[in-house]
Amino acid sequence: MESKQQSETEGKPIRCKAAVCRKAGEALVIEEIEVDPPKAFEVRIKILCTSLCHTDVTFWKLNVGPVAVFPRIFGHEAVGVVESVGENVEEVQEGDRVLPVFNADCGECRDCKSSKSNSCSSFPITHLNGVSRDGTSRFRDSNGDVLHHFLFVSSFTEYTVVDIANIVKINSLIPVDKACLLSCGVSTGELVAHRLFRTTHRGLLPVSARPPMALGKLRRALITFLRLSSDWMELVQAFKVAAVEEGSTVAIFGLGAVGLAVAEGARLRGASKIIGVDLNPEKFEVGKKFGITNFINPTNCSEKSVSEVIKEMTDGGADYCFECIGLVSLMQEAIFSSRPGWGRTVILGVEMHGTPLSISTLEIMRGRTVGGSVFGGMKAKSDIPFLVKKYLDRELNLDGFISHEVNFQDINKAFDLLLQGKSVRCIIWMDK
Amino acid sequence: MESKQQSETEGKPIRCKAAVCRKAGEALVIEEIEVDPPKAFEVRIKILCTSLCHTDVTFWKLNVGPVAVFPRIFGHEAVGVVESVGENVEEVQEGDRVLPVFNADCGECRDCKSSKSNSCSSFPITHLNGVSRDGTSRFRDSNGDVLHHFLFVSSFTEYTVVDIANIVKINSLIPVDKACLLSCGVSTGELVAHRLFRTTHRGLLPVSARPPMALGKLRRALITFLRLSSDWMELVQAFKVAAVEEGSTVAIFGLGAVGLAVAEGARLRGASKIIGVDLNPEKFEVGKKFGITNFINPTNCSEKSVSEVIKEMTDGGADYCFECIGLVSLMQEAIFSSRPGWGRTVILGVEMHGTPLSISTLEIMRGRTVGGSVFGGMKAKSDIPFLVKKYLDRELNLDGFISHEVNFQDINKAFDLLLQGKSVRCIIWMDK
Repeated sequence: MESKQQSETEGKPIRCKAAVCRKAGEALVIEEIEVDPPKAFEVRIKILCTSLCHTDVTFWKLNVGPVAVFPRIFGHEAVGVVESVGENVEEVQEGDRVLPVFNADCGECRDCKSSKSNSCSSFPITHLNGVSRDGTSRFRDSNGDVLHHFLFVSSFTEYTVVDIANIVKINSLIPVDKACLLSCGVSTGELVAHRLFRTTHRGLLPVSARPPMALGKLRRALITFLRLSSDWMELVQAFKVAAVEEGSTVAIFGLGAVGLAVAEGARLRGASKIIGVDLNPEKFEVGKKFGITNFINPTNCSEKSVSEVIKEMTDGGADYCFECIGLVSLMQEAIFSSRPGWGRTVILGVEMHGTPLSISTLEIMRGRTVGGSVFGGMKAKSDIPFLVKKYLDRELNLDGFISHEVNFQDINKAFDLLLQGKSVRCIIWMDK
Repeated sequence: MESKQQSETEGKPIRCKAAVCRKAGEALVIEEIEVDPPKAFEVRIKILCTSLCHTDVTFWKLNVGPVAVFPRIFGHEAVGVVESVGENVEEVQEGDRVLPVFNADCGECRDCKSSKSNSCSSFPITHLNGVSRDGTSRFRDSNGDVLHHFLFVSSFTEYTVVDIANIVKINSLIPVDKACLLSCGVSTGELVAHRLFRTTHRGLLPVSARPPMALGKLRRALITFLRLSSDWMELVQAFKVAAVEEGSTVAIFGLGAVGLAVAEGARLRGASKIIGVDLNPEKFEVGKKFGITNFINPTNCSEKSVSEVIKEMTDGGADYCFECIGLVSLMQEAIFSSRPGWGRTVILGVEMHGTPLSISTLEIMRGRTVGGSVFGGMKAKSDIPFLVKKYLDRELNLDGFISHEVNFQDINKAFDLLLQGKSVRCIIWMDK
């Protein structure tokens, strides 16, 4: 299928291989499927490589509720090339290197126009089983039965169809495996530690490996920025970035790619203590490379709770806590671990079981706050190209996140590696 | 008792009148009680006037749990005069005009030293039944049995004993009934709308009735401030104040004194829409004086929820929501009413039944945040004298909050007025 001329396929269904999940929790099966041509505002892309995120695994396991729909094609971190475009698509064309992104950026709704939000109100993350605009599927199996999409991307297939609101054109100089990481996990983690919460790149201090600026220098830089900026809201956010920087204590629950990216972000901002919490003892050695200074294995806490241990380590509670797993019990523990007078808890993990978060209001009355963030607060179309540039300028390190690589035929190995806690990110190559 | 020379009473128990609550929900009974002399770090004060806050009523009704302790002396909004001081008290002396404040400000712990917190970690609000430092009572009834304190203040008595950490000396030029309001409710509401969340008065823009500054002017003022300030954290907070100012939409759940004070604060900051939610239809007329532009009576919403109505009014959700009642169901409704991409919900009401707040993490994943605030984020010893000065400079309006006045003998009338939703604040005069 890869050798077909694009002119031959445009406007027609494409037959290609996909890794189909027939039933929750079961190994994916490589099948021949049919991918419809893109409708208006849609783009059909040939996937070059993809990677497995914990969110895929969460929904792969989920067998109850309205979003547990099978058969389905998972995958939402990927890089591809545009094969053809539907009507009204002018932003990209055949041959463009693109990143599909689950978090839409329509550019026209009140949220996309606001610097405070990255939560597109035209295409919110509510119907996860089809393309963004009409919610229907472009995939059929060999019997002609519908295969559902996942998170508006579905990248575990040689070809997929994605709404233009979920497509970001990128500089093709960045290696595809590194670019792939920016499609979800690493962006979600690293950016949120830098920004807390939204800003655009104009307000974001460079994501570089140099030591954090001294406060005086920072203030001077910001005065200059303040004079130049036409959008003062961004300054607020830049100051928030600085608030994380100066000797803050940070606790991170879950040291997967998101958690490690949070650690890296916190380290670059000069956090004085970065506590990693994970059941897997091997994560401490991995975490050290990303700035983790202290490690807590909950199974070794004897009679103390994790939050009690963190409170002792931080003289009363961490300044910032990040939940990067998606478990309500950990979210509660993260809140308890934050400083009562000013601690901020950021929830990055998607709750696995749909359980609501229950907190005593007395726990937050003294000044704690709890908030969530999707995709690290990034606006896909402006922030991803900015991060690509940072990578090409050697200011952003992405290489350390890739721990494994497999061929598409061996995609179930990527699941095994993640489930066993052995991989940070496993790149799945479509051509191999 | 009032005519006694202070030198005669110093170091001895004082017999005086108090309004004692013998049982949850029952009318208070004026009894003769005995008030012990202050121990080390304590101050005995003669109450001049006091007022009734919803928090008193909440705990007055509460008949289960560890804080439902009777007999008890309620009251925590008051103004008094120092009768005598215990050892190690140098900050105030006999004859000083003081405000007792439930929220301690020890000045020495990490929280009190930080500009980010007003949640004293030396004397947290955990044991509410005695004085702050040792948790025991200074009150006895005529049988010699212990009468419990409330919120470290207990002002429904002619004399009370309060820890020096809970005492603020004020300028005696401010009329006592106006000063009394700053002791809790009005400060809690008005300040939080201005600050969101903590700052010190150096960072706070003047609480004045003049129209909000234009953005350019504000920015220039802040550049000047930035140059002068030695504490850049305050700038962040001042910007947050500004963030509320520029055309924000605000929804306030519960139009008691706290809710009305939030409205007044939001109005002064130029919020474009201030939506008040209350079951009492009379509150709309009252609320208009404090800036309420739209009123929602939940009983008139037919089949829509309050949050649906607010979303329609605000094109998708309010920028800021304030819960000023203390009901979990309203807190949830407040969160739902906030804009998914950036809405901020501030919980000011003390939850009445100890029910935990339960929220779906999907509700906050898109960018909402939820936080609490005690006492409007104020640090008692620095911020109350600042507000007193603002009142004396005619920049802060307190008069509108006083709706009723009663004699101490008629204190149960104050309860009736509040329970019937007729009063905003009812001043209870001790001398009359």
